[in-house]
Amino acid sequence: MSEFARRVSAEFLGSLLLAALVVGSGIAAQQLSPSDVGLQLLQNALATALGLFAIILIFAPVSGAHFNPVVSLVDAALGHRAWRDVAAYVPAQILGCISGAVVANLMFGLPAASISATERLTAPHLLAEVVATAGLVLVIFALVRSGRGHLAPAAVGAYIGAAYFFTSSTSFANPAITIGRMFSDTFAGIAPSAAPGYIAAQLAGGLLGFALVRLFYP
Amino acid sequence: MSEFARRVSAEFLGSLLLAALVVGSGIAAQQLSPSDVGLQLLQNALATALGLFAIILIFAPVSGAHFNPVVSLVDAALGHRAWRDVAAYVPAQILGCISGAVVANLMFGLPAASISATERLTAPHLLAEVVATAGLVLVIFALVRSGRGHLAPAAVGAYIGAAYFFTSSTSFANPAITIGRMFSDTFAGIAPSAAPGYIAAQLAGGLLGFALVRLFYP
Amino acid sequence: MSEFARRVSAEFLGSLLLAALVVGSGIAAQQLSPSDVGLQLLQNALATALGLFAIILIFAPVSGAHFNPVVSLVDAALGHRAWRDVAAYVPAQILGCISGAVVANLMFGLPAASISATERLTAPHLLAEVVATAGLVLVIFALVRSGRGHLAPAAVGAYIGAAYFFTSSTSFANPAITIGRMFSDTFAGIAPSAAPGYIAAQLAGGLLGFALVRLFYP
Amino acid sequence: MSEFARRVSAEFLGSLLLAALVVGSGIAAQQLSPSDVGLQLLQNALATALGLFAIILIFAPVSGAHFNPVVSLVDAALGHRAWRDVAAYVPAQILGCISGAVVANLMFGLPAASISATERLTAPHLLAEVVATAGLVLVIFALVRSGRGHLAPAAVGAYIGAAYFFTSSTSFANPAITIGRMFSDTFAGIAPSAAPGYIAAQLAGGLLGFALVRLFYP
Repeated sequence: MSEFARRVSAEFLGSLLLAALVVGSGIAAQQLSPSDVGLQLLQNALATALGLFAIILIFAPVSGAHFNPVVSLVDAALGHRAWRDVAAYVPAQILGCISGAVVANLMFGLPAASISATERLTAPHLLAEVVATAGLVLVIFALVRSGRGHLAPAAVGAYIGAAYFFTSSTSFANPAITIGRMFSDTFAGIAPSAAPGYIAAQLAGGLLGFALVRLFYP
Repeated sequence: MSEFARRVSAEFLGSLLLAALVVGSGIAAQQLSPSDVGLQLLQNALATALGLFAIILIFAPVSGAHFNPVVSLVDAALGHRAWRDVAAYVPAQILGCISGAVVANLMFGLPAASISATERLTAPHLLAEVVATAGLVLVIFALVRSGRGHLAPAAVGAYIGAAYFFTSSTSFANPAITIGRMFSDTFAGIAPSAAPGYIAAQLAGGLLGFALVRLFYP
Repeated sequence: MSEFARRVSAEFLGSLLLAALVVGSGIAAQQLSPSDVGLQLLQNALATALGLFAIILIFAPVSGAHFNPVVSLVDAALGHRAWRDVAAYVPAQILGCISGAVVANLMFGLPAASISATERLTAPHLLAEVVATAGLVLVIFALVRSGRGHLAPAAVGAYIGAAYFFTSSTSFANPAITIGRMFSDTFAGIAPSAAPGYIAAQLAGGLLGFALVRLFYP
Repeated sequence: MSEFARRVSAEFLGSLLLAALVVGSGIAAQQLSPSDVGLQLLQNALATALGLFAIILIFAPVSGAHFNPVVSLVDAALGHRAWRDVAAYVPAQILGCISGAVVANLMFGLPAASISATERLTAPHLLAEVVATAGLVLVIFALVRSGRGHLAPAAVGAYIGAAYFFTSSTSFANPAITIGRMFSDTFAGIAPSAAPGYIAAQLAGGLLGFALVRLFYP
C-alpha cells in the first residue's frame, strides 16, 4: 500500500471509529438512563472525551488524525498540508463517519441505518456551532504551531468533552460527523434538514478559527 | 499587531472562552438535569475541568493564560511580570468574562444579559473563596517556580474541577469571572450584591497564596 | 526469584487487580445506585479507566502489563515477545482474573465465588466484542510501534472507559477477564454459556487488530 | 525557615488540603444529591482524584507529598528517607488531616468539629483496606523505583478515585485521613470505634505493599 493510500485509509478508519464512538455511546446512554437527559449527555461526553484521546493517538503519526474536513481545510490553508491530501481526506472522512454510524447501529441491534428525525436548527444552535468549531481549530493549531502537537490528542478530547456541555448544540463541530449522525435516529442523530445549516456554521467557525490562529500564532 | 496587544487580546479572548465555558455548561446542566443539583454541578465541574485544560493550553505561550486578576497580581508581585502588563490584563479579563457570559446566554437562546438573583454571601462561602483562591495560587506558582509550568493547564483544570465540590462556594476564585457571572441569571450566576464580598475574599486568598508560595518556593 | 518468574507473577497480580477493579466497582455501583443502570455503568467505567491507568503503570516495566491473552498473542505475533512468554502469561492471566473476582466478592461480603447468570450472547454483542478488541489492539500497538509506549497506560485506560459505553457489550475485550467475570453473579458478571462466544469474538477482533496494526504500522 | 521545617510544614498543609478535599466534597455531594449514594460517591471520587493530582503536584518537590504515615514508613523502610523525617512527618500529617476536616466543616457552615457516628467496621471492609493500601504503596513505589516518579501525582489521584469504588470501604488507605475523618459527622466520616481497626488494616496493607515492591522492583 502506498504511503498516500495509507494516510487516506487512516482517515477513513479513524472517522469510522469516531462516529461509532459518538453514536454508540449516545445509544447506550439513551437506553441505560432513559429518564435524565443530562446524565445521558454526561455519559456521551465522558465516553467521547476518553475515546477521542485514544483514537487520535492511534492515527496521528499516519495521517495527522483529522477526521474532520474543517481541520483538513485549515491545515492546508496554513500551509501544513497539500491540497491534494484534503481532496482525498474529505470523502474518506465522510464515508468513514457514515460507516461508523452503521457499525454503532448494528452493535446495538438496530437497523443498519435509519434517518434521524431530530430537528436541531435554531439560531442559537448555529451560533454554538460557530463557537465550537472556532475553538476546536484554535486548540489544534495553537498546539501545532508552538511545537506542542503531542498534546493534541488529550487537548482535543478534553475540549470536545467540555463543548458537549458549554455549547447548546452539543458541539458537532465537524461536517463529516454531522453527515454520519444523519444515519442513526438515536440520541446523537440530526435530521437531514438541519445538517446543511450546521455545516455552514462549522465552515464559518473554521474560518474564524483560522483568523484567530493567524492572529495569535502568526 | 504589537506583541503587547497580542497578549492583552489573548487574555480577553481566553477570559471570554472561560466564561462561556463556565456559564454555558451551567445553563446546559440546569436545563438537562432539572431535578438533581449535584448532577448539575457534576456536569458543570467536569466540563470546566476539561475545558479549562484546553483553553489554558491555547493561550499559555501568548499571554501566560491567566484569565484571572489575582493570578496576574501574584505574577507581578513575584517579579515574573511587569506591572504594566497587569494594568492592561485586568480590564481585558473583566471585559472578556462579561462577553463570555453574553455569548453563553445567546448560545442557549436567552436574553443577551440578565442580572443574576442568586444570593451567595455567607461567612462560610467567604471562607471557601479564601481557601479556593489560595489553593489556586499555590498550584500555579508551585509549578512555575519549580520548572514544571508545562503541567499548569492540567493541574489548574483538575484543581478547579475538584474545588467546585470541596468548597461550599463552588470556587469562583477569580474576580473577573465573578463579575462576568453577574450577567447571567442562571446556574452559575451571582447576584451583584454578593460580588464585592466574593472579590474581597478572593484578594485575601490571593495574598495568603502569595505568602505560602514565598514560604514553600522561596 | 528469576526474572522470568517475576514477569509471570506480575501478570498474575496485575490481572488479579484488574478483575478486582472491574468486578468490585460493578458491585459497588449496583449496590449504591440501584435504580439507574446508566449511572451504574458510569461509575464502573470511570473507576475502570482510572484504575487501569494505575495498574498498567505498576507492572509495565516488569512484564509489559498485558493482563490479556489477546494482547500477549499479538505481541508475540508481531515479534516483540517470545512465544514461551505467552505460554506462561496466559494461564497466569486467567488465574489472576479468577482470583481477582474472588477478592472483589470477599471485599463486598459476598460468597467467595458465585456463577453469573447474566446471559449476554447476541449477534450484536459479538460484533461489539470484535470491534472493542480490534480497537484495543490497535491502540496498544500503534503506540508501541511508533515509540510512544509510555502513553499506553493512559490510552488503554481511556479507551476501555469509552468502550464500556460505545460498544453494546460493555467491552470485555479480554478472554481472561471474561473467564474471571463468570465467578461473580453481580453487575460485571457473564454466564458461562456466553463466555465461549465472547472469547471467540475477542480472538477474531485480535486478528483484525493485528492486520490493521500491520497495515498502518508496518 | 529551615529546609527541614519547610518539609514538615508542607506535610501539614498538604494533609490539611487533602482532608478538606475529601471531607468537603463529601459534604457537598451529600447536600446536593441526597437521594442517590452512588451519585454522591461519584462526585466525591471525581473531586478527590482531580484534587489529589493538584495537591501532590504542589508539594512533591518540597516534602515528597506523602500526607500518609504508611507512605512515609515504607519510604524509610526502602531507604529513600531518614527515619527522623518519618518521626516528624507522621504527627504533621495527623494534625493536618484533623485541621482539614475542621476547615471543611467550617466552609459548609457546620460546627467546627463533630464526631462521626458512621460505623464501618466489618471483616470485608478490613480486607478492602488491606487491598487498597497495598495497591497504593505499589503504585507509588513502582513509579519511584523505576525513574517515573513524575507520574505519581496523576497515578495516585487516579488510583484513589478508582479505589473509592472497587473497594467496599471506599479506600481510606491512610491512617492520618482516617483520624481526620473522625472529626466530621458527614458523608466521609468514620466513627472513632472503627478507626483503630481501619488503621491496623492499613498498616498490614502497607507491609504487604512493601513486600510486593521488594519483589517486583528489587
